Amino acid sequence: MITLASDFGSPYPAAMRGVVHRRTTGGVQVSDVAHDLPRQDPRAAAFWLRFVLPEYPPATHCVVVDPGVGTDRAALVVRAGDHVLVGPDNGVLLPPARALAASAAGGGERAADDAVPTANLDVYEIAVDDPASATFHGRDVFAPTAADVHEVGVDALGTLDALSPTDSSVDLRFPSPTVESDGDGLGTRATGEVLVVDDFGNAITNVPGSFLDDRLGESVTVTAPDRVTTAPAVETFAAVAPGDPLVTVGSHGYVECDVNEGRGEEAFGLASGDPVTLAFGLN
Amino acid sequence: MITLASDFGSPYPAAMRGVVHRRTTGGVQVSDVAHDLPRQDPRAAAFWLRFVLPEYPPATHCVVVDPGVGTDRAALVVRAGDHVLVGPDNGVLLPPARALAASAAGGGERAADDAVPTANLDVYEIAVDDPASATFHGRDVFAPTAADVHEVGVDALGTLDALSPTDSSVDLRFPSPTVESDGDGLGTRATGEVLVVDDFGNAITNVPGSFLDDRLGESVTVTAPDRVTTAPAVETFAAVAPGDPLVTVGSHGYVECDVNEGRGEEAFGLASGDPVTLAFGLN
Amino acid sequence: MITLASDFGSPYPAAMRGVVHRRTTGGVQVSDVAHDLPRQDPRAAAFWLRFVLPEYPPATHCVVVDPGVGTDRAALVVRAGDHVLVGPDNGVLLPPARALAASAAGGGERAADDAVPTANLDVYEIAVDDPASATFHGRDVFAPTAADVHEVGVDALGTLDALSPTDSSVDLRFPSPTVESDGDGLGTRATGEVLVVDDFGNAITNVPGSFLDDRLGESVTVTAPDRVTTAPAVETFAAVAPGDPLVTVGSHGYVECDVNEGRGEEAFGLASGDPVTLAFGLN
Repeated sequence: MITLASDFGSPYPAAMRGVVHRRTTGGVQVSDVAHDLPRQDPRAAAFWLRFVLPEYPPATHCVVVDPGVGTDRAALVVRAGDHVLVGPDNGVLLPPARALAASAAGGGERAADDAVPTANLDVYEIAVDDPASATFHGRDVFAPTAADVHEVGVDALGTLDALSPTDSSVDLRFPSPTVESDGDGLGTRATGEVLVVDDFGNAITNVPGSFLDDRLGESVTVTAPDRVTTAPAVETFAAVAPGDPLVTVGSHGYVECDVNEGRGEEAFGLASGDPVTLAFGLN
Repeated sequence: MITLASDFGSPYPAAMRGVVHRRTTGGVQVSDVAHDLPRQDPRAAAFWLRFVLPEYPPATHCVVVDPGVGTDRAALVVRAGDHVLVGPDNGVLLPPARALAASAAGGGERAADDAVPTANLDVYEIAVDDPASATFHGRDVFAPTAADVHEVGVDALGTLDALSPTDSSVDLRFPSPTVESDGDGLGTRATGEVLVVDDFGNAITNVPGSFLDDRLGESVTVTAPDRVTTAPAVETFAAVAPGDPLVTVGSHGYVECDVNEGRGEEAFGLASGDPVTLAFGLN
Repeated sequence: MITLASDFGSPYPAAMRGVVHRRTTGGVQVSDVAHDLPRQDPRAAAFWLRFVLPEYPPATHCVVVDPGVGTDRAALVVRAGDHVLVGPDNGVLLPPARALAASAAGGGERAADDAVPTANLDVYEIAVDDPASATFHGRDVFAPTAADVHEVGVDALGTLDALSPTDSSVDLRFPSPTVESDGDGLGTRATGEVLVVDDFGNAITNVPGSFLDDRLGESVTVTAPDRVTTAPAVETFAAVAPGDPLVTVGSHGYVECDVNEGRGEEAFGLASGDPVTLAFGLN
């Protein structure tokens, strides 16, 4: 199976679909992950791919979010357990690769991949005739390589002439929040940031879901750059009335600031990349 | 074959695609129906699914439009002829299930499914560990169940441990319009509502297409909440000039209020759920 | 393999997917090219399809951009090398068909298809019971025909009862720009038009990429209907700062007016169909 993910919108991804079908034999399955990943934003794309790719069975994942196309940034193939990722060397590949390697290693827990050493991953650089050419690398470099990787199989990557091992690649780590407690443990404050805002308007922070452990039902003070909002920490949207704000743990394992049947980004005044503070019993 | 439909936008459906591929064997075909179904609106989703699912060959249809996720609403598997639907118990499944059962029974006619007795359908409740947990039921409940249903086959649903027959499920019926005629039959009035507005801006009513029988070419008076518009009843968009309003029968079999190369919802002042009156020779 | 392309948005294309799966055997692969092709615009759709369809292996391509549905416009099947196109007779099929025929003939070069004689193509008219009916031709005519074509195979089109050869079909040619040079060759001006604006806001002109040969790094004067903008001719977006305009050759082989990490259509004041002049050393 080959999956395709990009920020290309439409109809450019169709050229990639065509290429992988044309260069493979035997009716390979092609699955579109998404082609509306946050545009030119490898960090946000890495967040989403780290979240969804581990749900797939072993596959070759072709990922093209590539603001550096036409510069001399390298093109990579990354092996992560039984999965392979193909894409630009700008950091978008390593976070999902770690999640896939953790999953293959039986680590299992979602979003716990940051502990997996990069040493468990094999990274190859793709030989590209003219890396700085203005061609459509999704069509002309990444999709053909994904097809070739699929054909040769994950255990034979080293036999592909176009690939040479490298130990230098751009990594990207999501920032960790700072968590402070007062003396008696009743007051707790997490200082972090908004990683992404999803399609529903939910503002997803980098604060791990465990921050809400044993505090469900309590009030959280959320401090955004220009606004302070108080909302209950709840297990589910339906715990508050439609239109009301809430703080909960999303399916990705992080705390998010939401509105039931509304847009959390607007109610809380939060955008992707914003600093945010969440506090119980403190300000 | 497994189809996926939701109101999740992107990229959440990729997690469901991954799950169904991971939990099935032998390269199951996965077809995305749509992931931009009207958000949190089981009634509008049911309208669209009733329209498109009967076009598919026998398949397992995973449907997730689920404003009640995290409440104790049940999770269902519905067998309808050779098809199976999997999704939340909020009414979104029964209208397309009746259409699929009617189609399997040879009833054939599109949009004529309301006459099929629910008794022709088998309904099962899915055992969910903690129905009110805040997990992503599309990924964690419905997609895995759809994969399991596909693997075991439609004739062996009863062998799945997670399923138990139930005779209590939320149904949903589309309202029927009231049709009145004056004494000589020259004047006719249908009082109904707008079921959905489609991507083109066409306002689709619940008035059956037969209301326009023998009246093509005549003028229809369309009364919306804040506007009265007169437009010709025609067979096709091209019968009026670009930009002009028209009333016609859509491919779903209902009367819709449209504009040729424009948006009917704006010209007629109609939104989903609005009451609407259509009249020939009356006001 | 069957590909589907339309301007239907969502969820109407699901009906077409269902039909092609229902009418074929043995698990045909179905690939969505795009369903957000420029609405009711066969010319822009033809541009995109000419660009992406040649990337596919031999396939049946079902194309529905059909402002004339419900008129008596014909329905066509076009054979182009090992590929087949199915769609309305409004010009949308011939440009991609020529590109596919050129590709099959080994012509190879992208965007060089206008030289392929139409004689290399076989065109058939589909017998449609009532061409001017108000049905959903994507579901009721084109998808079933695409399925039947796939089942019978490209070499046996003549055996399908519904098809009869025709030598009359609507063609569509993209306009050629006018290129003038002054005496010493230092000044050059191309007068053309904007073919389409893509999802990124890039304004794609009909001026062939060769216009920039040997002029990279020089300044281009771009004259739009209400604005004159000067920008460098560069090989790649990254050659200018984010937010700055540029003129480059896109992956389709034409000159486009873009902004690095921004929207060229806004910076240059260009929309689809606009006349545009590009000049080096002249005004």
